[in-house]
Amino acid sequence: MPFVPPEVLLLGPGPSPTSTAVQRAQAMPQLGHLDPAFLPLLDEVQARLRSLFGTTNALTLPIAGTGTAGMEAVVANLVARGDRVVVGVHGVFGQRFAEAVRRRGGDVVVVAAEFGQPLALEAMTAAIAAGPTRLCCVVHAETSTGVLTRLEPIAASARAAGALFVVDCVTSLGGIELEFDRIGVDAAFSGTQKCLSAPPGLSPVTFSPRALAKAHSNPEPVPFYFDTRLLTGYFGPDRAYHYTAPITMLYAIAAALDEVVAEGMPARAARHREAAAALRRGLQPLGLEPLVKAEDATPMLTAIRHAHGVDDKAFRAFLRQRHGIEVGGGLGPLAGKVFRVGLMGHGARRENVLRALAAFGDALRAAGQRPDVSAALAAAGND
Amino acid sequence: MPFVPPEVLLLGPGPSPTSTAVQRAQAMPQLGHLDPAFLPLLDEVQARLRSLFGTTNALTLPIAGTGTAGMEAVVANLVARGDRVVVGVHGVFGQRFAEAVRRRGGDVVVVAAEFGQPLALEAMTAAIAAGPTRLCCVVHAETSTGVLTRLEPIAASARAAGALFVVDCVTSLGGIELEFDRIGVDAAFSGTQKCLSAPPGLSPVTFSPRALAKAHSNPEPVPFYFDTRLLTGYFGPDRAYHYTAPITMLYAIAAALDEVVAEGMPARAARHREAAAALRRGLQPLGLEPLVKAEDATPMLTAIRHAHGVDDKAFRAFLRQRHGIEVGGGLGPLAGKVFRVGLMGHGARRENVLRALAAFGDALRAAGQRPDVSAALAAAGND
Repeated sequence: MPFVPPEVLLLGPGPSPTSTAVQRAQAMPQLGHLDPAFLPLLDEVQARLRSLFGTTNALTLPIAGTGTAGMEAVVANLVARGDRVVVGVHGVFGQRFAEAVRRRGGDVVVVAAEFGQPLALEAMTAAIAAGPTRLCCVVHAETSTGVLTRLEPIAASARAAGALFVVDCVTSLGGIELEFDRIGVDAAFSGTQKCLSAPPGLSPVTFSPRALAKAHSNPEPVPFYFDTRLLTGYFGPDRAYHYTAPITMLYAIAAALDEVVAEGMPARAARHREAAAALRRGLQPLGLEPLVKAEDATPMLTAIRHAHGVDDKAFRAFLRQRHGIEVGGGLGPLAGKVFRVGLMGHGARRENVLRALAAFGDALRAAGQRPDVSAALAAAGND
Repeated sequence: MPFVPPEVLLLGPGPSPTSTAVQRAQAMPQLGHLDPAFLPLLDEVQARLRSLFGTTNALTLPIAGTGTAGMEAVVANLVARGDRVVVGVHGVFGQRFAEAVRRRGGDVVVVAAEFGQPLALEAMTAAIAAGPTRLCCVVHAETSTGVLTRLEPIAASARAAGALFVVDCVTSLGGIELEFDRIGVDAAFSGTQKCLSAPPGLSPVTFSPRALAKAHSNPEPVPFYFDTRLLTGYFGPDRAYHYTAPITMLYAIAAALDEVVAEGMPARAARHREAAAALRRGLQPLGLEPLVKAEDATPMLTAIRHAHGVDDKAFRAFLRQRHGIEVGGGLGPLAGKVFRVGLMGHGARRENVLRALAAFGDALRAAGQRPDVSAALAAAGND
């Protein structure tokens, strides 16, 4: 019996909903990964990813694996045993980044902030300046909390210290205009199932020439799969076989990037901002409040504190069963305390916000609260 | 402009052709990777992979990445710095396996045979017995040459020496009946774009309890992405978030496994054997000969020596342009000397063999040869 998924509106931390065009792209027949008709697609995907990252880096390509695979690729190439690496940690993905560096043998210096709070820039600057720092790592849009990190000042501190600046932009790529060359980001990794609205399974990465120089002089061997020279061998002009590219995933990201280009990044970023703002306006009448202050918040993910006495699991199960809506639970110290609403890519739309607010109201009523759904919808709808 | 691939019959070393059902499965909407409707699919995929590997190993699951990612997962978990690792090398994928172990810090002992020849079992046994061997690694179906390795005697030697026996079955899974528990295989990795006829992008892996014990006592940290404990956390009963599973790839492998179950592995293996035998019967009338003797050959990939004076690139380009057929080139020392014909999964069918032989004949005629196409088709068609 073929599996047929139920219809679920994906408003969690990812995967986000995919458009019909992106869905259909995956249903096309396979082509060989060295086929002359396939290779131009590969070049186009790389060019469009460069534009989204805001970079001219030659090594800008999608790795076969999810966002975490891209993190491993960046860490394996750029961290050598004993390197002092400053990592900003104010959420689960910062913890993960630090953990990956630690496993690679890096000497991790954590600059921590409370989950839901931004990183303290002075603390980052001081930590970077305090030692012979080789790398500085931050998460741009922390998916576990919805805090956005301001990259410019940290990039400047890293550059002043001679450190490489490395960014997890899994959740921001395609939802915020990125200007990594102008800011001075040396390497970054992302995912496809957030604001690009492609399926999970690829991780766009980019390495600056400075980052590549470090990778090429790394005394530790890099796993074959993540070796930048071998990746470049296939994605660059040589077209040397490295591993079999995931053909239909590449069809999907190409179709998703077509949509990004057709919409234009400024309009797409504005759409994300507007959807998040509408959601935030609708919370107070429901008796809910966001975890993160508006000025620190990401536009694609909003963590919302549960109303007092509301059970997280029951609340989310109600949304899924009665309303066909997925939202995310809290992670780490926020488990049970918040739920996370993603308005990402194809999902970042006013109609989804209104449907979600109505459903939240229904779930809160079922949990004995007294939400004012009319006021919530009116507030969200008026901009 | 949406990309539309040309129609190409994929008879190279992979990706193999996918069925309409597998193609359509990928076009279904995303579900969350923790959605209650998605998790049973994950369990079913694992159960069916266990059946294909011939194992009851609990840790049997598809890693998000291509076959090479599965290799990295196995190597990262099972190799510790300084471990003596015997690797059979008689093709490019044996070389790759050795290289991955070396990069991980293993002390690699290569047992080499000429490309196109089987491994010498006495040499393998002697190398395994010669030292405190921790691991023995071989490629079951060497995709670069089409040589099949007999696993039983090597497994026995490894077991006698107290070494783990690790197998690359990227190209054999789903095309040959595997009995890894009976034989004594401790860990293995595969791909989806060969005899499973799913798209590339997943790597089924399996670890025996003995292998897991080694992984858990490995003094070297394992990359987060490949950590068996974290993989088990998601794929096992805990359903703990590790990384976002590639949803549509999992739809595809589930649909592909449905087809394997419907056909039955014995019939599927017979179909692969019959297709390869038909191809071999058709070669001689064309003036071609296989690289590998029939008794050593894989049933899913046949490397064929180029006729004297035929240019490899021109020959393959002719097949692709005039006949819409992809075949593979030679790798390593066989580059330019052989071409590789994959009859894998959905592609392993008599009609594809006949079409291929007719096209080879046409390409040989264009290269100034005198192939007897009628005799080739008659020989292939008569079994």
